[in-house]
Amino acid sequence: MVDVISAGTIGLDDIETPFGKAKDTLGGSGVYSSYAASFFATPGLVSIAGEDFPKKYIDELRKRGISLEGVEIKGKNFRWEGSYEFDMNEAKTLKTELNSLIEFNPELPDSFKNAKYVFLANVDPEIQLKVIDQVDSPELIVMDTMNFWISQKKKKLEEVMKRSDVIIMNDAEARQFFNTVNLVKAANSALEFAKKAVIIKKGEHGALLFVKENGKIKHFNAPGYPLEVVKDPTGCGDSFGGGFIGYLAKTKNLSDASLRKAVVYGSVIASFNAEDFSLERLRKLTMPEIEKRFNEMKEIREF
Amino acid sequence: MVDVISAGTIGLDDIETPFGKAKDTLGGSGVYSSYAASFFATPGLVSIAGEDFPKKYIDELRKRGISLEGVEIKGKNFRWEGSYEFDMNEAKTLKTELNSLIEFNPELPDSFKNAKYVFLANVDPEIQLKVIDQVDSPELIVMDTMNFWISQKKKKLEEVMKRSDVIIMNDAEARQFFNTVNLVKAANSALEFAKKAVIIKKGEHGALLFVKENGKIKHFNAPGYPLEVVKDPTGCGDSFGGGFIGYLAKTKNLSDASLRKAVVYGSVIASFNAEDFSLERLRKLTMPEIEKRFNEMKEIREF
Repeated sequence: MVDVISAGTIGLDDIETPFGKAKDTLGGSGVYSSYAASFFATPGLVSIAGEDFPKKYIDELRKRGISLEGVEIKGKNFRWEGSYEFDMNEAKTLKTELNSLIEFNPELPDSFKNAKYVFLANVDPEIQLKVIDQVDSPELIVMDTMNFWISQKKKKLEEVMKRSDVIIMNDAEARQFFNTVNLVKAANSALEFAKKAVIIKKGEHGALLFVKENGKIKHFNAPGYPLEVVKDPTGCGDSFGGGFIGYLAKTKNLSDASLRKAVVYGSVIASFNAEDFSLERLRKLTMPEIEKRFNEMKEIREF
Repeated sequence: MVDVISAGTIGLDDIETPFGKAKDTLGGSGVYSSYAASFFATPGLVSIAGEDFPKKYIDELRKRGISLEGVEIKGKNFRWEGSYEFDMNEAKTLKTELNSLIEFNPELPDSFKNAKYVFLANVDPEIQLKVIDQVDSPELIVMDTMNFWISQKKKKLEEVMKRSDVIIMNDAEARQFFNTVNLVKAANSALEFAKKAVIIKKGEHGALLFVKENGKIKHFNAPGYPLEVVKDPTGCGDSFGGGFIGYLAKTKNLSDASLRKAVVYGSVIASFNAEDFSLERLRKLTMPEIEKRFNEMKEIREF
């Protein structure tokens, strides 16, 4: 049975970084997030793929235990081409071909409708709203987005934010949305939308978590894992979100302490993801490796 | 008796931020660092001031318990004019008048020569070397610098780095010096110079500490304190360094655990410093406030 659903894109990516190139490689916010969630829970993917989407990837995701019942196959697959230069923190989008994504109108299979944990990965906010409308009685809705939707569909995005328990943004997006350079101010403003918590992802600098608990705001500062080599950061934000909600779906504990652990597990999965192209590193990743790095994250912040 | 000496500038600053202006205000790397150190230890300042440097500031520093025996008075005072715009992380230098700083040739009074803790605040590396030459048997030499010296006097700076136990740089300086965007790589390269440790200051994102202990490198990630209002970040880096060495001079413990605490105390003092112009906030700051924020720093990183 599916215990967490993730709605987002299935992509075919062309990526270039100072460490190499990858062509026609598996990507997309739905793929990264559900793959990351699968370390802790049984995810169902809500997405659309093209008829040209390689069967080997479908087989791989199924074998991984990700339910594809919510995936429609239609037309030509969504494609993204991006590069990273000296500053690996920022992707430069060279080309986006939406293709069949334009016609994506999510219809949740019955087996997905009673999922308690819902992750709205980065995708058009109108699609995110349609997913929220179809889940029966979610325990936790977590949403992510990107700069494009903030500038193009801010009103719709606000609707998604108001209907979510946890809002995830990166630092640049939070600054853009709330028109302030100060991340604490931005997070406090975002907490007026979110029912429960706000997370600000800061790439190499870790992540901030702000939780409303008994009328007070509690702040958590998660360290970034010190990586000496970042080969390809594509999908790190999605992996973070997937790891975060996957851990919560596994533990079914939504206390401040549990949310903090979920942020660290999300950061751990994301840090592994950056170590190689596409899903290469996640494919080989084991639970003992995850636990080891989780414990290292404790050591590096101890004083 | 002086137990820590700080060599750096005494400045008169004109500062403009989105929160206001300050004119002819007390500043300089030597002033901020020795003031910050004075919360924990008895500092001696090694510097030069102009004949136009206001007597009220001299009286204030003396009253604070900072020995000015190492301060020469000559010519016109060093002046800096800077502004901060939307991004409070970066100062824009509008004007620098070196004035008497050009003739600064530090001569340590006898009472300073046997100081065990030496802080080389941001100043010309040739001056930093002259200070090192005059201390008898230091336990710990900590150095700071800035982008200007990296581009203008890299060789001299390297000499200072090799003779220091702890190197402090901010993230931009570390990237510039070691020509890499990756801070872990930069820190590992800096550890080939420093005898003991390297600290990379990251402003709002906290600080990283890398310590050589028994042939292994230990990593510490200090959180940034979540400030909702940053009025004037001038002197935060210097306050960090002064708080760091002041705490070590007080405890006389140079273990990894003690260095980590010193980094957090440095961060705490720097976070208070950013709350108001010039030294305004530090003037009012009390030890109970410092201890309270130190404990908050523990809570915000707990998971």
